[in-house]
Amino acid sequence: MTFQMTPEKGRFVTFEGGEGVGKSTQLARLAEHLRECGFEVVTTREPGGTEKAEKLRDFLLSGRAAPLGPLAEAALFSAARADHVATLIAPALKRGAWVLCDRFADSTRAYQGARGGVDAKTLALLERAAVGETRPDLTIVLDLPAGEGMARAASRRDGGERADRFESEDPSFHEGLRHAFLDIAESEPERCCVIDASLSVDDVARTVRAFIHDRFLAHAAQAAQ
Amino acid sequence: MTFQMTPEKGRFVTFEGGEGVGKSTQLARLAEHLRECGFEVVTTREPGGTEKAEKLRDFLLSGRAAPLGPLAEAALFSAARADHVATLIAPALKRGAWVLCDRFADSTRAYQGARGGVDAKTLALLERAAVGETRPDLTIVLDLPAGEGMARAASRRDGGERADRFESEDPSFHEGLRHAFLDIAESEPERCCVIDASLSVDDVARTVRAFIHDRFLAHAAQAAQ
Repeated sequence: MTFQMTPEKGRFVTFEGGEGVGKSTQLARLAEHLRECGFEVVTTREPGGTEKAEKLRDFLLSGRAAPLGPLAEAALFSAARADHVATLIAPALKRGAWVLCDRFADSTRAYQGARGGVDAKTLALLERAAVGETRPDLTIVLDLPAGEGMARAASRRDGGERADRFESEDPSFHEGLRHAFLDIAESEPERCCVIDASLSVDDVARTVRAFIHDRFLAHAAQAAQ
Repeated sequence: MTFQMTPEKGRFVTFEGGEGVGKSTQLARLAEHLRECGFEVVTTREPGGTEKAEKLRDFLLSGRAAPLGPLAEAALFSAARADHVATLIAPALKRGAWVLCDRFADSTRAYQGARGGVDAKTLALLERAAVGETRPDLTIVLDLPAGEGMARAASRRDGGERADRFESEDPSFHEGLRHAFLDIAESEPERCCVIDASLSVDDVARTVRAFIHDRFLAHAAQAAQ
């Protein structure tokens, strides 16, 4: 099934979930599929995605910002996000590209909000400052028991990579994260869909594609007829 | 002249201006005067004022945040401010105290906005996130040619203290700052008053007191009669 069409504007899809749930793998699979459908696809990640934001990524994930507290971390993630949105995401969407982003504002809500204790109102204002009107059209929450995700993340690090600032938090932190993402998805069902990430990579990729077609492409295909 | 009265709520007065204009000296003089008038007075400063915010102060003024860029610096100043407002300023105002603060949100507008190039809309959202409804009732902008202020700041450091992240910027940065503060004062004349800081300490202190009495105490004294 191939669609050759240019949407009026691009679509912004974010992948969220705890450590080791397969976000970057699934993002790459969806990007490949959308490119086969004839779309321009930009893949990116948070924290990071631009030169300035990647500097902040290093700083945040090394743990050097941790002593400053969760609110400062949230502020820094938001600063990185503002640059990412303004420099890369919004321009890509404007020219009609699909943007697939590995983590976005929901990660700040889950890590610094639900787990870090930063109040929701402050986070909402930081999010608005960083994101403006560039909100995701669809957020795919990959869901996995925290223990399984952590085991996957650990095996990925067998090459000698060190656990980052958040990977090295304890198991209850990660179980709490999982529920924070599920709560976000439940509170915004129109934007979010939850996918069982314990299935095979192929099965998850198929489910992601089905969501994308249902949500965006079936309608566009009908309109194009 | 002594007023013995408790205002319905406290008053929030901020002191702004470039380096070496005499903010902390004038703040101490006003605090002394208001205490003589029978008020509870809380004196504080930014960045800092609370345990968390002082940690961020060290980080910001040491220059370690500078490579992260002005937006990240603005985000960190805002995070420090949010803690300062929630933990110290808002509770003090609520119980009827006067809060005198050495620098506040206008410094972020001037340093990271006008001088650092962070756009005003993003800064306004960060400011709202940090400050909420706790906006200053009065902002005293102490105005001095940048060269004079820098010379005063340098002589204050004769004891061996090092110039901080912002003190070590070049003269054109400081001249730009001066104009940024004047622009803020011009755009919000109801909140801000500009005082010529080249006068003697006593003359500036007298002018500050006159503003405070005109703005708040004369009216309260009449109402109390």
